[in-house]
Amino acid sequence: MASISADNPKSLMLFSGRAYPELAHEIGEHLGVAPTPTDAYAFANGELFVRYRESVRGCDAFVVQSMTAPINRWMMEALIMVDALKRGSAKRITVVLPFYPYARQDKKHRGREPISARLMADLLKTAGADRILTVDLHTAQIQGFFDGPVDHLFAMETLASYMQDKYGDRPLAVVAPDSGRVRVAERWTDRMGGCPLAFIHKTRDPLRPNEVVANTVVGDVAGRVCLLVDDMIDTGGTICRAAEMLDAAGAADVVIAATHPIFSEPAVRRLAEAPASEVVVTNTLPLPPDTNLDKLTVLSIAPLIAKAISEVFKDGSVTTLFGGLS
Amino acid sequence: MASISADNPKSLMLFSGRAYPELAHEIGEHLGVAPTPTDAYAFANGELFVRYRESVRGCDAFVVQSMTAPINRWMMEALIMVDALKRGSAKRITVVLPFYPYARQDKKHRGREPISARLMADLLKTAGADRILTVDLHTAQIQGFFDGPVDHLFAMETLASYMQDKYGDRPLAVVAPDSGRVRVAERWTDRMGGCPLAFIHKTRDPLRPNEVVANTVVGDVAGRVCLLVDDMIDTGGTICRAAEMLDAAGAADVVIAATHPIFSEPAVRRLAEAPASEVVVTNTLPLPPDTNLDKLTVLSIAPLIAKAISEVFKDGSVTTLFGGLS
Amino acid sequence: MASISADNPKSLMLFSGRAYPELAHEIGEHLGVAPTPTDAYAFANGELFVRYRESVRGCDAFVVQSMTAPINRWMMEALIMVDALKRGSAKRITVVLPFYPYARQDKKHRGREPISARLMADLLKTAGADRILTVDLHTAQIQGFFDGPVDHLFAMETLASYMQDKYGDRPLAVVAPDSGRVRVAERWTDRMGGCPLAFIHKTRDPLRPNEVVANTVVGDVAGRVCLLVDDMIDTGGTICRAAEMLDAAGAADVVIAATHPIFSEPAVRRLAEAPASEVVVTNTLPLPPDTNLDKLTVLSIAPLIAKAISEVFKDGSVTTLFGGLS
Amino acid sequence: MASISADNPKSLMLFSGRAYPELAHEIGEHLGVAPTPTDAYAFANGELFVRYRESVRGCDAFVVQSMTAPINRWMMEALIMVDALKRGSAKRITVVLPFYPYARQDKKHRGREPISARLMADLLKTAGADRILTVDLHTAQIQGFFDGPVDHLFAMETLASYMQDKYGDRPLAVVAPDSGRVRVAERWTDRMGGCPLAFIHKTRDPLRPNEVVANTVVGDVAGRVCLLVDDMIDTGGTICRAAEMLDAAGAADVVIAATHPIFSEPAVRRLAEAPASEVVVTNTLPLPPDTNLDKLTVLSIAPLIAKAISEVFKDGSVTTLFGGLS
Amino acid sequence: MASISADNPKSLMLFSGRAYPELAHEIGEHLGVAPTPTDAYAFANGELFVRYRESVRGCDAFVVQSMTAPINRWMMEALIMVDALKRGSAKRITVVLPFYPYARQDKKHRGREPISARLMADLLKTAGADRILTVDLHTAQIQGFFDGPVDHLFAMETLASYMQDKYGDRPLAVVAPDSGRVRVAERWTDRMGGCPLAFIHKTRDPLRPNEVVANTVVGDVAGRVCLLVDDMIDTGGTICRAAEMLDAAGAADVVIAATHPIFSEPAVRRLAEAPASEVVVTNTLPLPPDTNLDKLTVLSIAPLIAKAISEVFKDGSVTTLFGGLS
Amino acid sequence: MASISADNPKSLMLFSGRAYPELAHEIGEHLGVAPTPTDAYAFANGELFVRYRESVRGCDAFVVQSMTAPINRWMMEALIMVDALKRGSAKRITVVLPFYPYARQDKKHRGREPISARLMADLLKTAGADRILTVDLHTAQIQGFFDGPVDHLFAMETLASYMQDKYGDRPLAVVAPDSGRVRVAERWTDRMGGCPLAFIHKTRDPLRPNEVVANTVVGDVAGRVCLLVDDMIDTGGTICRAAEMLDAAGAADVVIAATHPIFSEPAVRRLAEAPASEVVVTNTLPLPPDTNLDKLTVLSIAPLIAKAISEVFKDGSVTTLFGGLS
Repeated sequence: MASISADNPKSLMLFSGRAYPELAHEIGEHLGVAPTPTDAYAFANGELFVRYRESVRGCDAFVVQSMTAPINRWMMEALIMVDALKRGSAKRITVVLPFYPYARQDKKHRGREPISARLMADLLKTAGADRILTVDLHTAQIQGFFDGPVDHLFAMETLASYMQDKYGDRPLAVVAPDSGRVRVAERWTDRMGGCPLAFIHKTRDPLRPNEVVANTVVGDVAGRVCLLVDDMIDTGGTICRAAEMLDAAGAADVVIAATHPIFSEPAVRRLAEAPASEVVVTNTLPLPPDTNLDKLTVLSIAPLIAKAISEVFKDGSVTTLFGGLS
Repeated sequence: MASISADNPKSLMLFSGRAYPELAHEIGEHLGVAPTPTDAYAFANGELFVRYRESVRGCDAFVVQSMTAPINRWMMEALIMVDALKRGSAKRITVVLPFYPYARQDKKHRGREPISARLMADLLKTAGADRILTVDLHTAQIQGFFDGPVDHLFAMETLASYMQDKYGDRPLAVVAPDSGRVRVAERWTDRMGGCPLAFIHKTRDPLRPNEVVANTVVGDVAGRVCLLVDDMIDTGGTICRAAEMLDAAGAADVVIAATHPIFSEPAVRRLAEAPASEVVVTNTLPLPPDTNLDKLTVLSIAPLIAKAISEVFKDGSVTTLFGGLS
Repeated sequence: MASISADNPKSLMLFSGRAYPELAHEIGEHLGVAPTPTDAYAFANGELFVRYRESVRGCDAFVVQSMTAPINRWMMEALIMVDALKRGSAKRITVVLPFYPYARQDKKHRGREPISARLMADLLKTAGADRILTVDLHTAQIQGFFDGPVDHLFAMETLASYMQDKYGDRPLAVVAPDSGRVRVAERWTDRMGGCPLAFIHKTRDPLRPNEVVANTVVGDVAGRVCLLVDDMIDTGGTICRAAEMLDAAGAADVVIAATHPIFSEPAVRRLAEAPASEVVVTNTLPLPPDTNLDKLTVLSIAPLIAKAISEVFKDGSVTTLFGGLS
Repeated sequence: MASISADNPKSLMLFSGRAYPELAHEIGEHLGVAPTPTDAYAFANGELFVRYRESVRGCDAFVVQSMTAPINRWMMEALIMVDALKRGSAKRITVVLPFYPYARQDKKHRGREPISARLMADLLKTAGADRILTVDLHTAQIQGFFDGPVDHLFAMETLASYMQDKYGDRPLAVVAPDSGRVRVAERWTDRMGGCPLAFIHKTRDPLRPNEVVANTVVGDVAGRVCLLVDDMIDTGGTICRAAEMLDAAGAADVVIAATHPIFSEPAVRRLAEAPASEVVVTNTLPLPPDTNLDKLTVLSIAPLIAKAISEVFKDGSVTTLFGGLS
Repeated sequence: MASISADNPKSLMLFSGRAYPELAHEIGEHLGVAPTPTDAYAFANGELFVRYRESVRGCDAFVVQSMTAPINRWMMEALIMVDALKRGSAKRITVVLPFYPYARQDKKHRGREPISARLMADLLKTAGADRILTVDLHTAQIQGFFDGPVDHLFAMETLASYMQDKYGDRPLAVVAPDSGRVRVAERWTDRMGGCPLAFIHKTRDPLRPNEVVANTVVGDVAGRVCLLVDDMIDTGGTICRAAEMLDAAGAADVVIAATHPIFSEPAVRRLAEAPASEVVVTNTLPLPPDTNLDKLTVLSIAPLIAKAISEVFKDGSVTTLFGGLS
Repeated sequence: MASISADNPKSLMLFSGRAYPELAHEIGEHLGVAPTPTDAYAFANGELFVRYRESVRGCDAFVVQSMTAPINRWMMEALIMVDALKRGSAKRITVVLPFYPYARQDKKHRGREPISARLMADLLKTAGADRILTVDLHTAQIQGFFDGPVDHLFAMETLASYMQDKYGDRPLAVVAPDSGRVRVAERWTDRMGGCPLAFIHKTRDPLRPNEVVANTVVGDVAGRVCLLVDDMIDTGGTICRAAEMLDAAGAADVVIAATHPIFSEPAVRRLAEAPASEVVVTNTLPLPPDTNLDKLTVLSIAPLIAKAISEVFKDGSVTTLFGGLS
């Protein structure tokens, strides 16, 4: 006989890093598949080890890792997980990064700097990743850092429909916390029915470019509920200062919306003290342990990611998840 | 004898594509080296041919090509020039792109689109380019598209010092023509001594995202000389509409500054008719033949590029050309 | 559940560049599939844009582009189409090039030249092409320029069976228009039943190698219908001079056969005036608009390409399309 | 119609190099598939040629080549076979190397040496191999030389169960022929029920590191049947000297077990003369023609390789072939 | 003028990661060059940032990073430092890893595991490393994991000459703590003048391969000073159990020598309690803060690394540093 | 101090494989450098080993290997030599192949064949070769198979000036032994002052394409000294049949010229018996031992190769060695 023929079904397997297993499990519940049982631990000197307890041959693998602190450890774990899948003959490997690591180092601000966001894409490729699935990249150009397909999901609809329901009957303004986020804020104004747009203008001394000497609100915010929107909240400094500016400028209320709650110290304290009535985020990252912030609302990103994984697996369309905006 | 030893001097050679030889010659004059004599022509069906008339072995090659129309032809010529240098044993190849091609396709705006700006970087790398030297990228992230060093020069100082000299004693505002350029405009405000910042806010119908339904000036411009700044002027539609908005909003005067004068039809007519008193650009691109625009001022980019090439060749510092801002 | 299983059918999709959509449609008709609806256009400065209107995830993609003038534009469009397919998660990408671009620059004729035919193969690979399907390469070695499968189709049977039907009952000779095409012409003599073989010998001055100082017919052609065969007709200079030589040498008639009708200026005029009674080509390339040449016969290459695509898609054999000669 | 859909079964094809076709056929019998008919021969100057007589499009190809003398010829044949499969559009290519070539050059012993075992992995990758399947690597680290999946099979169970049956009721010791093989010998002691472990300690003069000045048996062997275990027997020098040492140290009997019978001259004579009652090997390599060694037992490796190929093809688990020890 | 000529001197620059700057400074003192001033810090979420304060164009860069805990952070810092050098136009980048990270994961022990030691080599290559310089790899095969030159230094001479001086006049035995280190221990016996060799044999149940059921000393140790040698001491479990076995077997004294003092908890306590009179290590890794171990001797590895860097820079020979054993 | 500066001379080193050391030595004599002392031998099973006795760090390495039988062994030796140079930190590696291996397998003649000439180029690149220097490629397109510089030398001038001196005063014809070599023969006619050109036309049955059914001389040869030119003589079948055809067609004399004397069995006997008065070759390959052929003239290629190596090392021009024809 010249050849042996066999059926060729495809098989989706889900893998979870240890950074935020709750999110992977929630995604798995939406998909109807549990994360693959895995032995993962660190040796005494911090070297990580991973072993899958079930065969991964020929599978369509989705590796979920949330890039929270200690971020270098979780990035390395993701790389090692991908290596083990590659060497274990997985057919296709998609790394699911709800929050893309090092996204803010997406260019050289000055000479002799790295472009770490590109480096991360190359490291993933080298380890064996075929595809990336991520949410709300800090800049959309990061898609182009990876040599292969990147499915870029947007949390705006999740966040905005909540906002619309709760605040849609009051006069609104959308505000960008700095000049680099005005384009994204403009998309929000369209989603919120064409409301006004404003931003915080920072003045710097050209000789000391990292030092802000003054902030100004540009645009009309007086008497309006200001939706202060950003992609991430790290230490909360920028966004809380913006809230204060808006409050001083006569905003009726300030509501903060951001996709990624990094919440590094002292973000929670700052947010608690800021003149903002509500902070809405998604769970692309876990909250720090013992986060206590009454005004915080967390919306789940799991349904969106699960839907996208399902479309990717079935060769459906991710674009249609966003009314054509993928 | 076990080996032969010899001196190992380095040698800079300059190469000019046919897109805009005047610029390459001007750069060469600043450097003190003429572009290498080259046979370059197209066959009847448009296939390009290049041959260098002098040996290029071991040289540190700088290939200057301005990406003007017909842009695909000049990009292909640049790739072929690089291939001929690689196969001719040049030691290091830097492609000098005063205007980076396809810079506006730096991300997928929607699904099933290319990221052509990344593709161009990969094509250059594949042909044999080791390094890129370019001016005012549409977005700085494009640096990260190339797997190797990118020297990114800024024309702002060239343009701004002209502006400062001419308009610095009047009340100014810096204006971004759309929400995506506010960050860059903010840098101008710092350079111009902390003047106000404004931008044109476009409102879109989320169901027809490519269609603008309204424009608004956000920020204070009344009674001020508005410096309307952008990286490029293609057909001039956006920037001329912005000038009209500013005029309607009571600007004392409108002055347009942009690095790259693409000037596709009908840019020149629009600029002539726009309520702007002056248009200042650099010569990263040639002006279309017979451009007749009295209000146009062209500043030469050649000194800046020549200085950068010289630093690259001598292993000096490009960063210092910008007061540390490279 | 440890994994999700699903069927895994394969799906062929056809994509057409804008160089010669008629050929892609004709191929599609033979296959029973229409080219995928695509938005494709150029921006004002010539930068190209492509977007597919339907999801391409997981498809077996065939991108048809005829490399006609302006050839650099269509090559770039093909690269951009491939990039969009790669980033859109197509499973396998085959670029169908009825006429391979830059095929004549397949070696360095002298030092410091490019090898553009290799460069084109590398550019396609870099953009994301997995495979190439092409017709009558200028030299068969170009197959080796691509790092992957190349399906190389031959138009000889299409052309020769037409010739056999029309001229087979008269005394024939096969003639190569220059010394480099004798090997290919020899294959024709076998196909035409063992008729004589001749070629045009060009004498050059070694000090001026690009200048021909004399032409001679080598071989017996007197009283015979001469089939003058070549892979392409560009400006028609070589082949029309050959026809004149044959006429002068006493040929009973001259019939020209070539696969690729580039027909650059002044090919049509030259062919009209040449002492040849018929010119037979295929439609791997579109004829220039308003081509008016009574003696011209165009045979369609679409059935052959469609058959090959079908075999590739179904994992059949392309070799058998040629009686084992693939 | 927008696309053509078709079933997508997978198909296993087996290919045999000419080094040891009997093994490939035996593997094929276990699998139920014959090696694909192939034209393979050498030109007069030793250049090899390969052509498959059946279409290989889309197949899951397994190329079996035993790396016996002349080993460079067979390695080159394997590379050429892989190239032909790649260019013939095979879907996945696994090279089956029952004995990995150049495994002993797995590091630089001193400066200015190659690491040929890594080189072989890279050559296979470059030719187009996606995966490697091999038996008892000289050092397990060689797995890491290949950038992709390596299925590493162990012959120990095959050899050890034979030993257990024949010698299991007598007092045993497992002996490593040199200090570098102690770790592997230790695994044998566990398999043989916890018997003692010994090795031959070689003393060298540090100034002449390649010259052994003395051998010592370390460990208890007196009165025991010594299982002298190694991965390969090349010229037999080391292992036969070890047998003599054991005999002199009072071993009750010596039995030699090794996976790979390279048997270069004068291995057979040495083994015949050595104080060992039996030599047990597998058929990963063919025996030299006219091998005449009464005490030799050859166990077939074909069932193990066939089982592994079948698991690889069906996306089963190779790990489970070894009780989880893959 | 057709080209500009200039001298082409080479320039060594030293860069230090933050893991163990003391070692880099000590190396720099031996070389006569200070580490390049560098801004390096972590953002609140752990993302690292690096910027060099001086131009690195054209330099021969040596990046020193000791892979101590938190090891993933320091590995990522090394990768980012290399990226910044690559993008800053360093001419050649050598990463100096006194202790190679993840060296123990140099093979798949069972199926579905990573080979992390290979992955680290690939990550360094991807970031831009041209060469690696390291000390006492866990297995020498790791050299072959990197696609480029690896300078592999040996600390044995440093450690052994200390031992010879102090213990050389007493009867010695060299002991390997397990079966996998016997080969390395054998090299020590040659260096120590041909003394006896012993090792600790571990018996495992094949059904529970990670569980040791018994330990035996194989070889003669009674009445001898036992030099217990290993490449690293992590938690110290293996080596301290070995010391106890030797003590019980009648060793006159036990002295421990190891290159890499990882000293994870509870190594220091175990070593303090172990029946060993001295522990000798090098400073390839920093000791944990507040390490208090009277019997500890630390020898500096800096002179050896500095000598090797100097030879690499000057194109001298590293091999000769080891009497030809590189 | 921030950096250490040092001179940076370049150093040429010559390396000789064992295939034909006499040629490497002759080249070395012309250059004034001896091949680097090297340990090279084969292990019992044919695995090759290479070690350089002197440091190769930073050198400009030229590796000379003549691809004679057993060709796969010598190709593998060349690859291993390159790997050892790469890992030993050579700065640039040029492989000198006086005869390029597998040059005749430069395309797929039919389906499911390899393109071994491309494979060889890729293997050399993978091992670490930066450049290739070769003589009279079977087809010039092979230059394009290597991704890097190929210096392609021509032996025609060496052979033709000898011919001109000896036969230039008699009526000449240049004859190609088959249709595929007519283009090259045409170059000879120009060099020989414009003499007539002829070739041997082979008729095949299209159903049995490898079987020639008739040979014909096309062109005028009667009464002329026929220079029968080819790139190589393997078994001599084609060229000796051609000599017989020419003799039968009334040639005054037949003289054979070829660059590469492969001279596989029974070439020498055939040439001795052929109706040709002289056979002129170069020494790109060694003659088989005991070659006894009175009519044979061997011209040395060493001066040409040495000149080219010298130009490459000194960054001079190889093109000018051929009057601009490189």
